Amino acid sequence: MAIVDPLSQIFLRLERRNQPMHVGGLQLFERPADAPADYVHRLVERARDQCGVQPPFDKHLKYHFGQPFWVVDHDFDMAYHVRHLALPKPGRIRDLLALVSMLHGTLLDRARPLWEVYIIEGVSEDRFAVYTKFHHSMMDGVSAMRVMRRFLSIEANAESFRVPWQLPPARSARSSQLASTWHTVRASYRQLAALPATARSLVDAWHDARHDPDFTGPTQAPASMLNVPVSGSRRFAAQGYSKSRIHTVASAFDATINDVVLAMCSAALRRYLLDHDALPQAPLIAMLPVSLHDEDDGTGNKVGLMYANLATDVADPGDRLATIKRSVDYWKRHYKRMTPEQIMALVASLSAPAGLNLLTGLAPRHQSFNVIISNIPGPEDTLYFGDAEMVGMYPLSVVMDGQALNISLVSYRDSLEFGLTACRRSLPSVQNLLKYLDDGLEELMPAAPAASQ
Amino acid sequence: MAIVDPLSQIFLRLERRNQPMHVGGLQLFERPADAPADYVHRLVERARDQCGVQPPFDKHLKYHFGQPFWVVDHDFDMAYHVRHLALPKPGRIRDLLALVSMLHGTLLDRARPLWEVYIIEGVSEDRFAVYTKFHHSMMDGVSAMRVMRRFLSIEANAESFRVPWQLPPARSARSSQLASTWHTVRASYRQLAALPATARSLVDAWHDARHDPDFTGPTQAPASMLNVPVSGSRRFAAQGYSKSRIHTVASAFDATINDVVLAMCSAALRRYLLDHDALPQAPLIAMLPVSLHDEDDGTGNKVGLMYANLATDVADPGDRLATIKRSVDYWKRHYKRMTPEQIMALVASLSAPAGLNLLTGLAPRHQSFNVIISNIPGPEDTLYFGDAEMVGMYPLSVVMDGQALNISLVSYRDSLEFGLTACRRSLPSVQNLLKYLDDGLEELMPAAPAASQ
Repeated sequence: MAIVDPLSQIFLRLERRNQPMHVGGLQLFERPADAPADYVHRLVERARDQCGVQPPFDKHLKYHFGQPFWVVDHDFDMAYHVRHLALPKPGRIRDLLALVSMLHGTLLDRARPLWEVYIIEGVSEDRFAVYTKFHHSMMDGVSAMRVMRRFLSIEANAESFRVPWQLPPARSARSSQLASTWHTVRASYRQLAALPATARSLVDAWHDARHDPDFTGPTQAPASMLNVPVSGSRRFAAQGYSKSRIHTVASAFDATINDVVLAMCSAALRRYLLDHDALPQAPLIAMLPVSLHDEDDGTGNKVGLMYANLATDVADPGDRLATIKRSVDYWKRHYKRMTPEQIMALVASLSAPAGLNLLTGLAPRHQSFNVIISNIPGPEDTLYFGDAEMVGMYPLSVVMDGQALNISLVSYRDSLEFGLTACRRSLPSVQNLLKYLDDGLEELMPAAPAASQ
Repeated sequence: MAIVDPLSQIFLRLERRNQPMHVGGLQLFERPADAPADYVHRLVERARDQCGVQPPFDKHLKYHFGQPFWVVDHDFDMAYHVRHLALPKPGRIRDLLALVSMLHGTLLDRARPLWEVYIIEGVSEDRFAVYTKFHHSMMDGVSAMRVMRRFLSIEANAESFRVPWQLPPARSARSSQLASTWHTVRASYRQLAALPATARSLVDAWHDARHDPDFTGPTQAPASMLNVPVSGSRRFAAQGYSKSRIHTVASAFDATINDVVLAMCSAALRRYLLDHDALPQAPLIAMLPVSLHDEDDGTGNKVGLMYANLATDVADPGDRLATIKRSVDYWKRHYKRMTPEQIMALVASLSAPAGLNLLTGLAPRHQSFNVIISNIPGPEDTLYFGDAEMVGMYPLSVVMDGQALNISLVSYRDSLEFGLTACRRSLPSVQNLLKYLDDGLEELMPAAPAASQ
């Protein structure tokens, strides 16, 4: 039995029927060439046979004196957590995305461990898919991606079949109760020690907000159609974009991959908002979560954040990219001088008004940011689930009142795999953004030789 | 715009993530012999093309000054309400029930009209299914069944394709705003006029509770494993039972079909509780909703109720049936002297403590009843959806904290189609009840000639 940490408690409290607080992943696999007709059926059976459920997959919530604790679920029901679905024929990717949109819009059962896995057969071109759903109180996007990666193998091998919930927990999570108490004490001490530096950072940020033209912070976001109350229904849109094309643009503009990703998002959002005659005069502000995880950090929530000026008010693509780059560079310079604890403390101070607004449900006095754009590092090598090659993986995230769109992406092989999670009601035809993202990349491509890529 | 009536408001307020307050129906159809491979796909397309959405299917909730109103949804999204799913191969009925269990456990989106239709292809033996979900605030089980029936035809005809949401509303629902206000005034007057008779009935019931051994009321139900807090996950089990077999038993015991149904439920529950070493000493009490709808009553909620002693403490099947019959006959005699308004007022008084318990979420001081058993009249003729014959229809209902099982049944042709909706976590292997229901019927069958049926 362990008390739920404060950040995870916030994710539990923020949850309402119109804003489920789970993240997810959609993975696309190819059936091996010689697979029998009931390949996926057998795979589901085999997955359900993996009964040695490891932390945190074995824990559900129990409340004692109003406080939530994680306790082992002694009525663990594998067939409930691992589900077998199918697409109607012909199993187009749009049918898959429609199904996953539906699944992502429903709440997890709080009486059980807060995760579900759906194995979906009948995707066209002899593929199948796995959609996985974790509550944000259980782990953040980076932890989820780490889990998704660890159960896959770097070579096709039917014998090496593993599932996420049977993995031994990563090192720190495996440590003894005593060690973990010590870890908490040490972490609290580090957070205390961080306070003076944090205070200095806040003073700096306050100064910069008034004097540094590149400063982008949580007081500048305009109202927009992305920032409205949300319905309980979701639309998930996903597509991969060539990393080498993005790299070509980054080199040409002396920018990072991430800068170019932001420029693509900026171009796409500008176009989408123009379509709806709803482009704000002031530029949109993106919030960029920054992982503060160590290498062997286990699962959980450990995240800082930066702000980026998306320059959606600027018509010229090159100028937009330059403005974006300057605004991100400001936060990089700022964070380079700080420890992870200092960053977390600073983030807590900066985002306190937004957090309070979210928790109390009061209308925010000002919009802290317009859209979350989350870039999660992923595997570079081809990975396999048993003997099935993974041909795509796309992250799904949370939308909530005031944040009707989330853009998350993960890298895999030569692809940046974008997942757009949106409120289906407030953002009509949000799938158009997929094409606009591509256009946004294309218009930055250097002319002549690279243009043919 | 119309204010939501008080009973429907209760259904809205009772709803929580672990107790969705929607009812549903599962219908099973046979594809016509000459159907093309994409028959179901075309059917979905055709259903989505039926855009003239009629009341109450076009209305969603809006709150003004804290009061809920039904208002027309001007962003109606047909593809959201009508969904196309498929079963994994081989599409067994148990796979269908697993899928429907999952769908029935999720909340409707309150930002939209409170209904969803799922058209499910790939059921074995060339069948497909339609699962329909309505919020209880929109209509009760009888209204839902009426809607399900009205869109079907009595002969196979591809041209006569209709869908529930394009039906013109029934007479009273179609009446003008003025007429409907008048209806409300008149109904309130009738309820007021009913008060003296209600008071008399209450006094009678109170007297009977102490003196009439056949009286079964809301103070006698024992604690049981059916009456516990529920999880958010559901198990739906369904099966049809031969009406002529049930009729044979009813004749032999001079009982009604409904008495025999209750005896089957009693036998099944007794056996299930014995399996779990959890049979209470006192008999289980069933609550039986009674429809107070007129013939052309439209949709909505209009329901009275009776109590039945299920005699689960009695080992002999014949004695059990006799006790059940006497307890139901008591309420029939009692109600025969009353108008529908008087019955509704009486029911409100009798169930007030239970209702308060449900609303406040406080632990009940006493259990009002152990299980709801709802017997809904259905069609006797074979019905068709376009040119597809309906081969089965099963009702789904609500479970809630303290009521982990709901038994609903509807008649169709020579079958009584049972639908058991249960909390999947508190009632393990609840599907065993299907077999036990059959055993419960079999043990009442008269010997010799009828035994071979």
